[in-house]
Amino acid sequence: MPATNMNQLVSLCKRRGFIFQSADIYGGLKGAYDYGPLGAELKKNLKDAWWRAMVYERDDVEGMDGSIIGHQKIFHYSGHTETFNDPLVDCKACNHRMRADQMKDHKKCDSCGSTDITEPRDFNLMFKTHIGPVQDDASIGYLRPETAQHIFVNFKNIVDSTNRKAPFGIAQQGRAFRNEIVARNFIFRVREFEQMELEYFVKPGEDETCHDKWLENRLKWWDAQGVSRDKIHVLDVPPEDLAHYSKRTYDLEYEFPHGVEELEGIANRTDYDLGNHSKNQEELNLTAKVHPNTDSNTKMALFDDTEKRWYVPFCIEPSAGVDRGILAVLTEAYTEEALDNGKTRIVLKLKKHLSPIKVAVIPLKKNHEAIVTRAMEIKSDLMKLGIGRVFFENIGNVGKAYRRHDEVGTPLCITIDFNSIEQEESPVTLRDRDTMEQITLPRKELKAYLLKYFQ
Amino acid sequence: MPATNMNQLVSLCKRRGFIFQSADIYGGLKGAYDYGPLGAELKKNLKDAWWRAMVYERDDVEGMDGSIIGHQKIFHYSGHTETFNDPLVDCKACNHRMRADQMKDHKKCDSCGSTDITEPRDFNLMFKTHIGPVQDDASIGYLRPETAQHIFVNFKNIVDSTNRKAPFGIAQQGRAFRNEIVARNFIFRVREFEQMELEYFVKPGEDETCHDKWLENRLKWWDAQGVSRDKIHVLDVPPEDLAHYSKRTYDLEYEFPHGVEELEGIANRTDYDLGNHSKNQEELNLTAKVHPNTDSNTKMALFDDTEKRWYVPFCIEPSAGVDRGILAVLTEAYTEEALDNGKTRIVLKLKKHLSPIKVAVIPLKKNHEAIVTRAMEIKSDLMKLGIGRVFFENIGNVGKAYRRHDEVGTPLCITIDFNSIEQEESPVTLRDRDTMEQITLPRKELKAYLLKYFQ
Repeated sequence: MPATNMNQLVSLCKRRGFIFQSADIYGGLKGAYDYGPLGAELKKNLKDAWWRAMVYERDDVEGMDGSIIGHQKIFHYSGHTETFNDPLVDCKACNHRMRADQMKDHKKCDSCGSTDITEPRDFNLMFKTHIGPVQDDASIGYLRPETAQHIFVNFKNIVDSTNRKAPFGIAQQGRAFRNEIVARNFIFRVREFEQMELEYFVKPGEDETCHDKWLENRLKWWDAQGVSRDKIHVLDVPPEDLAHYSKRTYDLEYEFPHGVEELEGIANRTDYDLGNHSKNQEELNLTAKVHPNTDSNTKMALFDDTEKRWYVPFCIEPSAGVDRGILAVLTEAYTEEALDNGKTRIVLKLKKHLSPIKVAVIPLKKNHEAIVTRAMEIKSDLMKLGIGRVFFENIGNVGKAYRRHDEVGTPLCITIDFNSIEQEESPVTLRDRDTMEQITLPRKELKAYLLKYFQ
Repeated sequence: MPATNMNQLVSLCKRRGFIFQSADIYGGLKGAYDYGPLGAELKKNLKDAWWRAMVYERDDVEGMDGSIIGHQKIFHYSGHTETFNDPLVDCKACNHRMRADQMKDHKKCDSCGSTDITEPRDFNLMFKTHIGPVQDDASIGYLRPETAQHIFVNFKNIVDSTNRKAPFGIAQQGRAFRNEIVARNFIFRVREFEQMELEYFVKPGEDETCHDKWLENRLKWWDAQGVSRDKIHVLDVPPEDLAHYSKRTYDLEYEFPHGVEELEGIANRTDYDLGNHSKNQEELNLTAKVHPNTDSNTKMALFDDTEKRWYVPFCIEPSAGVDRGILAVLTEAYTEEALDNGKTRIVLKLKKHLSPIKVAVIPLKKNHEAIVTRAMEIKSDLMKLGIGRVFFENIGNVGKAYRRHDEVGTPLCITIDFNSIEQEESPVTLRDRDTMEQITLPRKELKAYLLKYFQ
């Protein structure tokens, strides 16, 4: 049974070092989180799984890694400066500010209950800063509100350096920032978050088929991360709810502990973005209504060798939230299991490629020199395998060590006991997290076993 | 012979998709760069090599991954708000702003030559923004100017969730931001950059030995990345030049194309940082002069089981720049080599674990269906090995394909020719980047060969 309320996860995350409120020694920074030792590994593993599926195991995708601070013109022409707003209201009685469309009662202040509320006004969600020593309008820059725009503005650089023709994609992972009026629901709606975005460019006319393929591909990927299809509701966003740039969008909505909300969006962005950032827009037969661009020095188009003309490809964008992904993965993995002895164990049934710790090496006796030394040798061998984190767990109580690693999702525990030091083959015991079954292996077979297990 | 001037590298980086100026379609954002397809891989590989050495292959280090936006109190108590400044002067004639200590002639404006210059004043290098819907002093937040502070403020969270005792370390990688008055020298001095920092906590008294061990360790690591010891000058920073928090600092200075400058700093930060962020400072016998802290809710100390008392560990900090590391690695790897035929080849002699593309699979004939199909099959097999990026290079000219991959540092090219489709064992040719020697392998041995080669 997956986690049914957020508190189970928040509590586990803090206690075991997955996720902490940022700056919590100073009362916390709302909407920002720090990933601790296990959370940092889980996040890295999820991102690596995406990168592997999106870049390494495909022929048609290039990666990139752009800056977080963005030139103001990027967000002027993308439309963010003008339209990336939420409706903000003030309570005139207590000065509390709220998002108008999310008030508990749209006539009363969430904080003091007063009905003396201002009319909603636009509040831009981009974090603004000044770049360089002069603080004026020309030096304004923004923290990127999405990684996508850095892909679009680098489109031509990447095409020129890789000789790509459509269809092909550009993948990017990294932080993005939205100054939410109210941050809430743990790592679900935060002001600083991480995205994994692919912009996949196709010839107009091939966009719809391609869009459907990506829907299928992404559902399959989430399934491989432990978020099964039957937990994801595909919302074919009704035309009236589509973002202005979208021809069609599928939202993958997951049953989070706080409600059914978006985990990933897969949008057909047409030629809107490349069109926005292009020079000579009037020559490009754009289908989207774009911002007239008088600043770009680059034509964002591909040359069609058959038809001997320039065209702007359409763009299919599978855009996933890393933190939301982690929340979904943790929710699915979290299990409270009744044991035969009447007790309950908490197990994080993570897919093994996502587990923060791959193997725990446990000496049977905490202070038995020969056993501990052998365990350290084995740990030392295994940590050079390149399988990820191998942990030396010397608490002198094997049962307790198992529970501890069940709770953080370590798929394998290896126990070193008297047999391991007394018998010629130096057998060790491997214990499986999910089945709790144990097998014995000679030490010399361990390396090959683990390499295969984690391949 | 390594690169001797920056232009060789800048040009290669742009042409082959390593690194682009950020927002260059809008004239560029000074001091910010976007890593393209090959640069993103190189950066990921360098960071992964560090993480593997610092976290996976050690018993005494935990990782973390904190937020980029930082609570203002973190930087108040760290001292950054007050002292993280550079001296700024204005030219009264043309309004140009310069860093006073880096003017070409300290009496004349760098831009117009006027001598009508203001007195230097402090310019704080932190990027400032406002968090949440209210823009006032209380909502100010900063982009972290270093990743280190997020480690210090999470010290207790991490100790509590992992039961660590000194000595142990906390490692973190990620973006940091400094609003340099003048950004320059390609990716060397930039406004947005990436760091790899370890804060290693030891008992006071053990700090000096530990500091020297880390110096040795880090030199060895850089050597394994292709930046050899004889290119790194260890500067034992003279007492009068030490940062105020440092008891002693070793700067690892590398011979960059633009001059000898810092690649990594290894500082003994004493108990300064944990002391700064701690409550009840007066009970802690701190050796450092700290800011009196009236806001922290946490005692940043460890309990000494033997002496039965709380103490604040000293901190040794090896702090490396990722971008500077990439610049050093590229400088060392860049080679122009005279060939027997009188021509010159450019080879990027990267260590193979750093190479952006691990293997290029090249069909001998571009349009020969059986050869191309076989090559695609082989590419498809290899890209599932988890060795990183495998590239299908179908340009119909093997010699040209070799040169292309020499230039981006691909260690192995695999050519599929008529033998590969006609002979029973389906032999393929492997060509080594550095020696240009070729060997032939039956297809069925390829997988094992590569797994071993890239292990």
